[in-house]
Amino acid sequence: MKEKENHLGMSRRDLLGGTAKTAVVAGMGAVAASSASPALAQDGHQKFEMAPGELDEYYGIWSSGQTGEVRILGVPSMRELMRIPVFNRCSATGWGQTNESLKILTEGLLPETKAYLAAQGKVTYDNGDLHHPHMSFTDGTYDGRYIFANDKANTRVARIDCKTMKCDKIIEIPNAHDIHGMRPQKYPRTGYIFANGEHEAPLVNDGKILDDPSQYACIFTAIDGDEMKVAWQVIVSGNLDNTDADYQGKYAFSTSYNSEMGTNLAEMTENELDHCVVFNIKAIEDAVAAGNYQEMNGVPVVDGRKEAKSQFTRYIPIPNSPHGCNAAPDKQHIVINGKLSPTVSIIDVTKVDALFSDNADPRSAIVGEPQLGLGPLHTAFDGKGNAFTTLFLDSQVVKWNMDKALRAYAGEDVDPIISKVDVHYQPGHNSTSMGETAEADGKWLVSMNKFSKDRFLNVGPLKPENEQLIDISSDEMAVVHDGPTFAEPHDSIIVHRSKLSPAIVWDRNDPSFDEAKKQAEADGVDLEYAADVIRDGNKVRVYMHSVAPTFSLEKFTVKQGDEVTVYVTNIDDIDDLTHGFCLSNYGIAMEVGPQATASVTFIAERPGVHWFYCQWFCHALHMEMRGRMFVEPRNA
Amino acid sequence: MKEKENHLGMSRRDLLGGTAKTAVVAGMGAVAASSASPALAQDGHQKFEMAPGELDEYYGIWSSGQTGEVRILGVPSMRELMRIPVFNRCSATGWGQTNESLKILTEGLLPETKAYLAAQGKVTYDNGDLHHPHMSFTDGTYDGRYIFANDKANTRVARIDCKTMKCDKIIEIPNAHDIHGMRPQKYPRTGYIFANGEHEAPLVNDGKILDDPSQYACIFTAIDGDEMKVAWQVIVSGNLDNTDADYQGKYAFSTSYNSEMGTNLAEMTENELDHCVVFNIKAIEDAVAAGNYQEMNGVPVVDGRKEAKSQFTRYIPIPNSPHGCNAAPDKQHIVINGKLSPTVSIIDVTKVDALFSDNADPRSAIVGEPQLGLGPLHTAFDGKGNAFTTLFLDSQVVKWNMDKALRAYAGEDVDPIISKVDVHYQPGHNSTSMGETAEADGKWLVSMNKFSKDRFLNVGPLKPENEQLIDISSDEMAVVHDGPTFAEPHDSIIVHRSKLSPAIVWDRNDPSFDEAKKQAEADGVDLEYAADVIRDGNKVRVYMHSVAPTFSLEKFTVKQGDEVTVYVTNIDDIDDLTHGFCLSNYGIAMEVGPQATASVTFIAERPGVHWFYCQWFCHALHMEMRGRMFVEPRNA
Repeated sequence: MKEKENHLGMSRRDLLGGTAKTAVVAGMGAVAASSASPALAQDGHQKFEMAPGELDEYYGIWSSGQTGEVRILGVPSMRELMRIPVFNRCSATGWGQTNESLKILTEGLLPETKAYLAAQGKVTYDNGDLHHPHMSFTDGTYDGRYIFANDKANTRVARIDCKTMKCDKIIEIPNAHDIHGMRPQKYPRTGYIFANGEHEAPLVNDGKILDDPSQYACIFTAIDGDEMKVAWQVIVSGNLDNTDADYQGKYAFSTSYNSEMGTNLAEMTENELDHCVVFNIKAIEDAVAAGNYQEMNGVPVVDGRKEAKSQFTRYIPIPNSPHGCNAAPDKQHIVINGKLSPTVSIIDVTKVDALFSDNADPRSAIVGEPQLGLGPLHTAFDGKGNAFTTLFLDSQVVKWNMDKALRAYAGEDVDPIISKVDVHYQPGHNSTSMGETAEADGKWLVSMNKFSKDRFLNVGPLKPENEQLIDISSDEMAVVHDGPTFAEPHDSIIVHRSKLSPAIVWDRNDPSFDEAKKQAEADGVDLEYAADVIRDGNKVRVYMHSVAPTFSLEKFTVKQGDEVTVYVTNIDDIDDLTHGFCLSNYGIAMEVGPQATASVTFIAERPGVHWFYCQWFCHALHMEMRGRMFVEPRNA
Repeated sequence: MKEKENHLGMSRRDLLGGTAKTAVVAGMGAVAASSASPALAQDGHQKFEMAPGELDEYYGIWSSGQTGEVRILGVPSMRELMRIPVFNRCSATGWGQTNESLKILTEGLLPETKAYLAAQGKVTYDNGDLHHPHMSFTDGTYDGRYIFANDKANTRVARIDCKTMKCDKIIEIPNAHDIHGMRPQKYPRTGYIFANGEHEAPLVNDGKILDDPSQYACIFTAIDGDEMKVAWQVIVSGNLDNTDADYQGKYAFSTSYNSEMGTNLAEMTENELDHCVVFNIKAIEDAVAAGNYQEMNGVPVVDGRKEAKSQFTRYIPIPNSPHGCNAAPDKQHIVINGKLSPTVSIIDVTKVDALFSDNADPRSAIVGEPQLGLGPLHTAFDGKGNAFTTLFLDSQVVKWNMDKALRAYAGEDVDPIISKVDVHYQPGHNSTSMGETAEADGKWLVSMNKFSKDRFLNVGPLKPENEQLIDISSDEMAVVHDGPTFAEPHDSIIVHRSKLSPAIVWDRNDPSFDEAKKQAEADGVDLEYAADVIRDGNKVRVYMHSVAPTFSLEKFTVKQGDEVTVYVTNIDDIDDLTHGFCLSNYGIAMEVGPQATASVTFIAERPGVHWFYCQWFCHALHMEMRGRMFVEPRNA
């Protein structure tokens, strides 16, 4: 990397503490030394330990990064309450194996993706990189309908139905590459899901253009969250990183760390100023309504690149490779986190109108730019006028005051920084209780740290990450809990429990059972009372129901080579009485929740006696809940 | 089910509280009502909360049941420190996708399994049902070398190398069906892994015999844990459930809940007495050494069925459908848990010799049979003469004294029960700190409960299980922590941290890199310095290394349809500096630990520009750690 001063008079080498590699090491070592005597929360802080049987006040909705699932934690206890498979495969639930999950995993894929996967002998991806789980909003706060999440690995967006807490839709985003930042529209409602294509590529990426970065672009996408369909897309200058929406329903904001459109480290970090793109939702909607767009892969696409000089976008210069993008609960300010600059840049949304209407200087929307420390990545809020920013290189969280930051930028001699606390180590995202809504309540902050190093028993070369719970109810932040997690606590939201009321058992009208119902009806079978085997050429459909501790069929017979589909309907209607269907030595297993139907299809290629059993503990006689599949040999 | 009294004068309907279905409900409701005011541990109990940065005293090695992974928890904090993929697929690490993991997942499969999987378009199973993780022993206690675990779903046994805390071997067990109970030999060392085939099937299960249960049998297997090869097998009467080994190296013991060899619930629960099989290790070894066995699928098999009247086995009658099998740290007693009988049956291993040498009455080895409560499933020990038994139907753990139980059985008027504690709800396995070794220390008990119901925030129809931590340092047990877990906290061991010392970074001589090294050598490539693309017909091998925040190749080119193998060697050697390789829109992702090599193979069927990136957060410039794969279109 070249050595040159940024606009704050600091060289990049200062920011990175020498070489990039040693920066991480030095940073971690320094923090480790300074935190040799960890202390428990002092008196006066909030209670975070849950007595046995006591319930948490908040649902934590957690990403898992490259693990590809969404996790539900209890906050403040920081206990993992549930894993929701989304972009991954799940041995326990059969996600990626049941017909119901395969429909969700495949129906939203693009034709060229299906062709690629078919060449690998697959129908869907096995992995995902789920960074940002966010809940649907109504009028600036969570409405408990849906959770949305992105897949950076394979350019997808998923939705979780908060009634069942299961993924109900996944779509692949055409034209864009590698969805990173993703946030729902806050006002008037969700509405749109805004999704950033991070990686630069040819607009038509069919191989005709390869190593010609001048022809690469990135795409911003607005998805209709009710229909889970792409509403429109915008071609931008520079790449796209994180995004957020305002509280007025007028604008969305996206950071770009690679305004250079570089293709290697030196090029990507070349400029001292990158930018934040502002998207003018009304202008884009009007253009789409008027037909002023190009259609690409069935989607209306408008050109918001700088050179197009459109009303769709404005580009606000920001130092330096900015990363996080966070709307404050004051409904007025958006904080852009500088990453390679020690600053955050504060946008006043009331000043954005003029950027479009009067072509005002884009930097005129900046009303604060406090210097906070090294490596500011993300900011969360307490609803009391304060903000909390993670400092990756310093391994700290800094608490600062918004009003003071604005006054300092206006020239007043005031220090916006209130306090700092060490975290362990290298924090990325953070989240506060209800902090990304207008109802931010300032009780808890979670710092999602990328390294844990010496904070837990050594478990081998692969270490857990570390989610730290911080009491922010007073000015001095107090780390009260270290929470190890498997890769990767990328991002989270902390939702008051009053906002969610999931179902206790499945609704028999849940649309995920529609295909099974349709087939059963065609076969003259009543799913809830089924104990039927239907042969249809070399296809065999086996219908059974389960009541603890029995399946309605204790045996069934098929022929080697048959395509067999087993449908199981769990007619137990008791809280927590989940059954499973596991077909041994066939690699088949699925969860069947109370009042749910699940199905799986396989080729009965293995002759002999094969037991199916309930693998979800249900009863004192659970182990006896089993039956036999007889597979008659082909040449018998 | 028929109504008849068992030998204790209780009808089965009493035991199950009415119908089987309502038993679970009634049991749970009753417990819920009685535990309305949960209390924290009182003064005088041990500390279980870890201050931030404080380390746990124990490694908890946890199964995950149908999730198919092994988990490492910290005890007593009950925090999940790591997930180790074993029988499942893992989006984060690439388990089931990397060449290194596929070798482990496939090389131990039987030919007929490979044929079955090939018919499904697969090379390995996607799921597993991992019940019992146990560590290797030397001289009656843990030696920190390996963890072994069974797969009930697909009849496999896996081994985890405690240096890397990764799975290094998986074998499928021939002849047997659906490995359930599994324990290592305690003395003189492991040595053998004893593994129970639970489900009844024809000995040659090729489809010639189907619905003829008279020709079914179950198989007990001894695996050489050093070689991960089957040493020998024993055909038994009845089915096999749980197992354990003595502290003398002479016998193994297995419970059978289906001595009837029934094929449905009524038949399986018909007899009031089932049995525990005792395996005479020396007699079996002698027969195998003398060639007195039949070979089945390359394995020596001896006939230990009752009617064979061999010296290989004895059958001790036990009431009623017994389940758990637990050797006490007094090195003398084995506790068999009655499940449908309210009793446990205590075997004195010193009395077992006579069963073989003198054909003594098998029940003469029983020296205690205390009545403890409804649904005793598993027993753990404190090393101070006391035992802790889970009562599934009562939703309790009962603490009882071994010596008093023996005296009561001998006729003395003494009550062995010391105390009971409610757990929430329906406990299965339990484990005490170091409790399955001669070094049981009596500090902590974990009750692994199958239902959580109302103990956590409602997360939809699928609830977490509940692992409860119980302080057993005084006579009154105290539940101090409710721990929600995703399916399923089936079994666990609690290992003092002094027993384990995993590596910090990978050893470059780890055998999992052997294939990559061999190929690199053939290609004239040095893995640690690689930045090479080798074309070999339509096969392309791409070698790169990683140093945060860069890959050694910023781009490479292949042709559509090429079979591409990417090898990444992480030459960072810093604690916790894991990298990843994620190839976007190709469904490819893998972990590359510090000093590790990992590789993955795919067909480059998708033309265009595709970014690969580091998905394991490594550095402030982590997002810039990426490069491009160019895929030239086939018809260009």
